[in-house]
Amino acid sequence: MTTEQLTTQIRTKKSFLCIGLDVDLNKIPEHLLQTEDPIFEFNKAIIDATHDLCVSYKPNTAFYEAYGIKGWQSLEKTINYINKRYPEIFTIADAKRGDIGNTSSMYARAFFKDLNFDSVTVAPYMGKDSVEPFLAFEDKHTIMLALTSNEGAFDFQTQNVEGKELYKVVLETSKLWKNAHNLMYVVGATKAEYFTEIRKIVPDSFFLVPGVGAQGGSLAEVCKYGMNTNVGLLINSSRGVIYASNGVNFAEKAREEALKLQQEMQTILG
Amino acid sequence: MTTEQLTTQIRTKKSFLCIGLDVDLNKIPEHLLQTEDPIFEFNKAIIDATHDLCVSYKPNTAFYEAYGIKGWQSLEKTINYINKRYPEIFTIADAKRGDIGNTSSMYARAFFKDLNFDSVTVAPYMGKDSVEPFLAFEDKHTIMLALTSNEGAFDFQTQNVEGKELYKVVLETSKLWKNAHNLMYVVGATKAEYFTEIRKIVPDSFFLVPGVGAQGGSLAEVCKYGMNTNVGLLINSSRGVIYASNGVNFAEKAREEALKLQQEMQTILG
Repeated sequence: MTTEQLTTQIRTKKSFLCIGLDVDLNKIPEHLLQTEDPIFEFNKAIIDATHDLCVSYKPNTAFYEAYGIKGWQSLEKTINYINKRYPEIFTIADAKRGDIGNTSSMYARAFFKDLNFDSVTVAPYMGKDSVEPFLAFEDKHTIMLALTSNEGAFDFQTQNVEGKELYKVVLETSKLWKNAHNLMYVVGATKAEYFTEIRKIVPDSFFLVPGVGAQGGSLAEVCKYGMNTNVGLLINSSRGVIYASNGVNFAEKAREEALKLQQEMQTILG
Repeated sequence: MTTEQLTTQIRTKKSFLCIGLDVDLNKIPEHLLQTEDPIFEFNKAIIDATHDLCVSYKPNTAFYEAYGIKGWQSLEKTINYINKRYPEIFTIADAKRGDIGNTSSMYARAFFKDLNFDSVTVAPYMGKDSVEPFLAFEDKHTIMLALTSNEGAFDFQTQNVEGKELYKVVLETSKLWKNAHNLMYVVGATKAEYFTEIRKIVPDSFFLVPGVGAQGGSLAEVCKYGMNTNVGLLINSSRGVIYASNGVNFAEKAREEALKLQQEMQTILG
């Protein structure tokens, strides 16, 4: 999928919502636990109930790996279901991978070819040759961690590297990499005032923004400082939407939460 | 496994060799491709042929994920085989994971509980709360990237953070985290002269050292600058050992390569 197609979808649906499919068997409705694949059944119900209100789904791979082979099967069924049923959706494998070149190539193949995700999140610590194998895939997107929404973001990302914060060095350096046009960035919502500075470095890129909702970030603030003329934002909500209820009506309640966010977004898009 | 048990194994086997099980179906002997699980059959033969010459095996998860569910099954069979047949071996899931706290907990569960690896590699970029969930597991080890062996290591890891390189800040900061005694570090072999400085910061920690062999690092140099009184080194070789031959005698040839490394190590251990 191209970024132009993503922007078109955002304009059509009046939404730049991404729903995080972080499925924990301890948190989903009990009646699903009797089914053969509770994780997939949960995802399918959430997806069917919300696909017109969001533009993206983001399964976090940790929540699938934690269930071993069964979890990996649920992930595969989930991505296949989205790709077949709702091909307009922008899919994100939230995997935060990154390794030496030949190894990153294997990860890229796993997520872009075998599973056919539109994008994957990666970590920058190992530098250029750990990210470029992902960027080599045309019409796929590599979403690199820049400034994250967690407390530990302040351990290294905001450290002063010769006069500027590390995350700014990461952003600037990454622009020089081969096929950098396939880059997007993770920018945490809990620090909205940082967006102004970040937009100076990467005015045209899409940002995946976690931290709205459960982690305390404000949607209005993020949009004020982070939006560009192509919108350029995917706002993620995971727990706030998918665990709105753990009753039999969980999908309906998830839709209600997604609708609230979509309506806020529609107002902002004007 | 405790680090004391690991050191005892090193003294007994006169080896601190770790063999990387990075299995690429394009590189393994053709006759194995007819078997039901070529990756596992390859690993099993390599392990049976080398277990007395090394102290650790390190499957890189990328090479298994690239084959989807079948790959994940091969990984599970491999770790189960090692744990059952050679329980003295120190196992490393080379996964380079790291995410916000509740997500890192899921990764820790996947590798430490479900798969029962002794250790897992993690990336530091997201800081303290992305690593501490791994450290919470007693008698398990979290091997954090400090200074890697690839070209991209110089993009960020050696950047000057207020007078010292980022990887030193990473090392120093991590010592303050809860259960820091469960930390080990990835330190690349291609820059042996860095070991002196690194040992000043973390004199007692174990280092996982990639980059000897295919990537050009020297074993003697690494040991000269990096060894401590408990040895404190696990030297990894992947391609140099496992792809010594792609004929029917591949396991025998892998043993020959492992033996060369073990004998060098025996000489160094004196």
